[in-house]
Amino acid sequence: MTPGEAGAPTDRTRVRRLSERGRYDRATVDAILDEGFVCHLGFTAAHGPVVLPTAYARVGDQLYLHGARANAALGTLSSGSAVCVTVTLVDGLVLARSAFHHSINYRSVVVFGTAREVTDADEKLAALLAVVDHVVPGRSVDARPPTDAELRATRVVAVPLDEASAKVRTGGPKEEPEDLSLDVWAGEVPVRLVAGSPVADSGLSATVSVPSYAVQYRRRPDDA
Amino acid sequence: MTPGEAGAPTDRTRVRRLSERGRYDRATVDAILDEGFVCHLGFTAAHGPVVLPTAYARVGDQLYLHGARANAALGTLSSGSAVCVTVTLVDGLVLARSAFHHSINYRSVVVFGTAREVTDADEKLAALLAVVDHVVPGRSVDARPPTDAELRATRVVAVPLDEASAKVRTGGPKEEPEDLSLDVWAGEVPVRLVAGSPVADSGLSATVSVPSYAVQYRRRPDDA
Repeated sequence: MTPGEAGAPTDRTRVRRLSERGRYDRATVDAILDEGFVCHLGFTAAHGPVVLPTAYARVGDQLYLHGARANAALGTLSSGSAVCVTVTLVDGLVLARSAFHHSINYRSVVVFGTAREVTDADEKLAALLAVVDHVVPGRSVDARPPTDAELRATRVVAVPLDEASAKVRTGGPKEEPEDLSLDVWAGEVPVRLVAGSPVADSGLSATVSVPSYAVQYRRRPDDA
Repeated sequence: MTPGEAGAPTDRTRVRRLSERGRYDRATVDAILDEGFVCHLGFTAAHGPVVLPTAYARVGDQLYLHGARANAALGTLSSGSAVCVTVTLVDGLVLARSAFHHSINYRSVVVFGTAREVTDADEKLAALLAVVDHVVPGRSVDARPPTDAELRATRVVAVPLDEASAKVRTGGPKEEPEDLSLDVWAGEVPVRLVAGSPVADSGLSATVSVPSYAVQYRRRPDDA
């Protein structure tokens, strides 16, 4: 396989440390990207590296990010500079008998690429609604669509998923054999992001009911 | 105030967009850093920007990160290159009547700095135990301490908090006045990270009880 081909790690996406945790198949990458909704966007500004959290959506082979046109970070992106977009889901704390082997169970995706500013009107509108629906699935059909002025005030950038890799840690602690007999509790404390009860905006009419996507909000497909 | 002085934004920490969300006081910064436990570490590699998730701890005016000595990312750090460390806590999804005003409630800290490799033995041990205790408060006294070989295999880097800023969004949607009469539900869906029941390691003796810090694990100080 050539570097960059789907499923083949390139020099920069290859997981070097603990390489048994590396995953390159798109199904794994997509599942992590689709469960998360806040990425950490990295780029190099004049003064050095910058990492900012922002919402995103995956549509096919692209990640879409958006921001106000006046946003300095996205301005840098649209000029075609290199970016790294990382999405991390934390699944648990791994308590080993030794301090050294403590770890965290997680699923992460790292995407390297060059951002492209989305200027096509149809693609831009679709990307913005995709972000709304990625954060709250089903929401965009209810919300008032963007006006032309709102679209002009918004910048959308796309990052292709050509160079994406996942890293996944699951399970209990790895231990040194001589530590197994220590009287120290070891195992995993699972963690997950859960939603609470929706809080209606103060000005909302009492005749407007809470939509099911707000009441039953969840990120993990297997959450009840 | 001079740039970098506690409480004074520097050119790169000043929050430019939606500047009313910017916070520079150390109490706000510290509270966010202390509630989170996974940061996104950004640096510039030969091929461009890189963003990786990793555990950390704050001790006074420093952030400590650690990794295997063979870890390429931390190797870059210890050479003194510039880094950006970002910690993000997601608190809720903000559903506005318009697609345009959808938002996310969050608390984030961005730290700009130059990493310093920690070589002093006492500081290094203290930093590693601080990371264990930051992820699971109270854990380090129970775990078997690192051996000299484990310490040699581990690299610790410190990033000073001189240039740290926080950004916080809370509350419901900001709306256009003409949208307030729309029959669209609006409000916030709060989200939080919660812990499940601890899962004991398969090899654990039945006589070892689950410690309270695992049973009662929580990140938010106000969680019950």
